[in-house]
Amino acid sequence: MTSTDAVRPTDHLAVDVIDIVDPSDPRIDDFRDLNSVDRRPDVPALPGGRVGKGLVIAEGVLVAQRMIASRFSPHAFFGVDRRLDELASDLENPALAGVPFYRASAEVMAEVIGFHLNRGVLAAARRPVELSVPEVIENARTVAVLEGVNDHENIGSIFRNAAGLGVDAVIFGTGCADPLYRRCVRVSMGHALLVPFARSQAWPADLDLLRSAGFTTVALTPGEGSVPLAEAVTDDRVAFLVGAEGPGLAEHTMRRCDVRARIPMSRGTDSLNVATAAAVAFYERAR
Amino acid sequence: MTSTDAVRPTDHLAVDVIDIVDPSDPRIDDFRDLNSVDRRPDVPALPGGRVGKGLVIAEGVLVAQRMIASRFSPHAFFGVDRRLDELASDLENPALAGVPFYRASAEVMAEVIGFHLNRGVLAAARRPVELSVPEVIENARTVAVLEGVNDHENIGSIFRNAAGLGVDAVIFGTGCADPLYRRCVRVSMGHALLVPFARSQAWPADLDLLRSAGFTTVALTPGEGSVPLAEAVTDDRVAFLVGAEGPGLAEHTMRRCDVRARIPMSRGTDSLNVATAAAVAFYERAR
Repeated sequence: MTSTDAVRPTDHLAVDVIDIVDPSDPRIDDFRDLNSVDRRPDVPALPGGRVGKGLVIAEGVLVAQRMIASRFSPHAFFGVDRRLDELASDLENPALAGVPFYRASAEVMAEVIGFHLNRGVLAAARRPVELSVPEVIENARTVAVLEGVNDHENIGSIFRNAAGLGVDAVIFGTGCADPLYRRCVRVSMGHALLVPFARSQAWPADLDLLRSAGFTTVALTPGEGSVPLAEAVTDDRVAFLVGAEGPGLAEHTMRRCDVRARIPMSRGTDSLNVATAAAVAFYERAR
Repeated sequence: MTSTDAVRPTDHLAVDVIDIVDPSDPRIDDFRDLNSVDRRPDVPALPGGRVGKGLVIAEGVLVAQRMIASRFSPHAFFGVDRRLDELASDLENPALAGVPFYRASAEVMAEVIGFHLNRGVLAAARRPVELSVPEVIENARTVAVLEGVNDHENIGSIFRNAAGLGVDAVIFGTGCADPLYRRCVRVSMGHALLVPFARSQAWPADLDLLRSAGFTTVALTPGEGSVPLAEAVTDDRVAFLVGAEGPGLAEHTMRRCDVRARIPMSRGTDSLNVATAAAVAFYERAR
């Protein structure tokens, strides 16, 4: 039995299961050429930037489940029969009524997306209006603020660590990569869709929004004038700032912060990966 | 001027600079087909296992420098002229007298190794006799013990975190990937060559070696019966055990440990990456 002649009933699902046998079928264009730098469907449609479809693509059962639970409502699924089966109870969710689940063989999927996808299922969502800095900090006690972090895997890891260690929101300063790129969402285990985030529209001036909301702004840096991390995390509201590996935070950004904090033992710019350094700070805060 | 007709003098270097123009030149066989599963030169020559050359390959200027500083003495280099230049002061080291530096264009390099190497330089070393568990723990206060960690990037990150956070040695229990694979060495930033490690020859019985040497063995687990991490790290000698993401440590391994410890806030098997969880434990210990 191939995936396209499955007889298991799907009537109880909220989604509409539609079999796809032709890789050129335009109904699955939202999943086409996922690795193409220019054509991938999750190229952002940024004002003044590259014009893309600006979708968000979830990869694999777990991340698709988290997308369903997030404010990024999937408008289509694309996957093999086995993953449809694994997702069945999630696909009974009435919020997904009428959403198509395009079912195909692994071979047809590979031809459409451009490579063999082990995880076997994708979900696509349109990007909702982004949250603002005031929105994401309103009820937050602990936030992470990133500057110049342009590596998708690091951003994904930071979301995962934020979710695991009780961080309430993530704010992106200048020079950061797109947190909704597929690889970032995957590395985050879907938490990029669940942990509220905002992009600063005025950097680093937006740090004043944090300070006027009562956050202590803590710059993570191994440099001079820093106190041990443990001394910098006890205030009621704390924002941790982290910079890219290598250059770290800009000096003029650190000057706007209340305190500079270092991770004891950890010396030099390459001693810890940026996501790991952030995790250590989150842990010290949660401890 | 191409890299092969450079006129900058190299006589002051300890290494012998030899220009390579033919990608099939057998002198650079130790750098051939780096991505080939079967033929790559760093396939281990394990007793009873696959038979490979068992080399260790360092990639990039920083990792090559750390290899030179390690007990893994390079017996050959392969790189473009620009990286030779960046390594010049390291290549004056008398310990490298007579070691060949095979210089080639980026194109020839790509043809030999099988892909374009941004980092532009490689160093190859033979594997010295491995250290034993008693050797690596002799003067250690803090050690990391891995079970079932079969992802090279995670192992590389654990080495990097160990070096950055004051861990003295790493011990590999059953089911771990090769810590000397190129990708692991690269992710570790070369610390896989510098932090002493040993492979357990009798697992988990070797945990008794740690306990009889006075180590408190701490199993990291989010499961039941665990105490907060901070309560488990104060003894004079501590060994942290971590398992693979998903399955975690085997129950019979945890039963041999003195204490089970959890990272507060962090719930569920996917909440933190194994290398991040280890870093948090190392930090709590160093704190």
